[in-house]
Amino acid sequence: MPHIEINENLPGIRSLMAFSPRTAEPMSKLANLLLRDNKGLSMADSELIATYVSYLNDCFYCHQSHGAIATCYLDGNKELVEQVRKDYRHADISDKLKALLSIAASVQKGGKYVTSGQIEKAREAGATDRDIHDTVLIAAAFCMFNRYVDGLAAITPEDLSTYELRAKQVAEKGYGNHIYTEKQPA
Amino acid sequence: MPHIEINENLPGIRSLMAFSPRTAEPMSKLANLLLRDNKGLSMADSELIATYVSYLNDCFYCHQSHGAIATCYLDGNKELVEQVRKDYRHADISDKLKALLSIAASVQKGGKYVTSGQIEKAREAGATDRDIHDTVLIAAAFCMFNRYVDGLAAITPEDLSTYELRAKQVAEKGYGNHIYTEKQPA
Repeated sequence: MPHIEINENLPGIRSLMAFSPRTAEPMSKLANLLLRDNKGLSMADSELIATYVSYLNDCFYCHQSHGAIATCYLDGNKELVEQVRKDYRHADISDKLKALLSIAASVQKGGKYVTSGQIEKAREAGATDRDIHDTVLIAAAFCMFNRYVDGLAAITPEDLSTYELRAKQVAEKGYGNHIYTEKQPA
Repeated sequence: MPHIEINENLPGIRSLMAFSPRTAEPMSKLANLLLRDNKGLSMADSELIATYVSYLNDCFYCHQSHGAIATCYLDGNKELVEQVRKDYRHADISDKLKALLSIAASVQKGGKYVTSGQIEKAREAGATDRDIHDTVLIAAAFCMFNRYVDGLAAITPEDLSTYELRAKQVAEKGYGNHIYTEKQPA
């Protein structure tokens, strides 16, 4: 049961954003900038970082949501997303993304866990300052989003097909305000 | 040494916001909404929650910055801010704020650590749904800000007087974009 009175027909963060539209606006904007920009990290890589951090934070709603969105960008390759969650070091992804996921995992524990060695490894694999910045901020932002969702005990659907339906909408339209105002697909 | 090339004359998050103005904008807006709104929690209470979470996350830059801002709102009562950091249960603050700080401390560990008992206690002390929502989101947002600052190893001034000077500016003008574009006071 949610800790505050929210619309229980809306799942996860959407119910919280409907409760507090004033804070939803900059949070949606930040999500769009970090996950949909595609000028630095690809949208698939950004979503994989978000998925992995949410998985480490044990936020079922967020890691299912973002895992489903990543899957959309990866032509339906669910297995790859699952492999990144469980053991990214052996996943079929670039060395650069592996190095960035290692940085993201450190950020999830706490900012000071990031080491110069991890940064160096990411640079050797081709990461730019912007890639490193965005990785740290995506990981940090999901430490916020995950705590927001679970800290208020928002509703977490167990039926995985609901995440896939929603993911298609997000993949198409992004994290705009429609995210919490539009109807959930039937 | 910072992990990316940033302006080392700017301390803490200000150097990161100057590096990435596109993400700075929604982050500043969120900080303003959460810490300066004064319609729900008072600005002093919001800053004390931000200070305490930053202290738990061991983010020196953030807990000094926000502690100094809280001090401005508390007529210079540094001792009270220090007491909240170290042992809020015995601080001269309301039972409501004590209950909210307890929720914030759980959020800092992870969203799922918040218990119904903590929520009930906050309600009994007079907390509204909005107070509880804002407390969880302030605590979650500082889990982001703290990781952003330390995860990129931004410069952390050791001279505490710099935090006091800056705090006066923020107390007066808020967390607008000027935060990272204006000159640091000499």
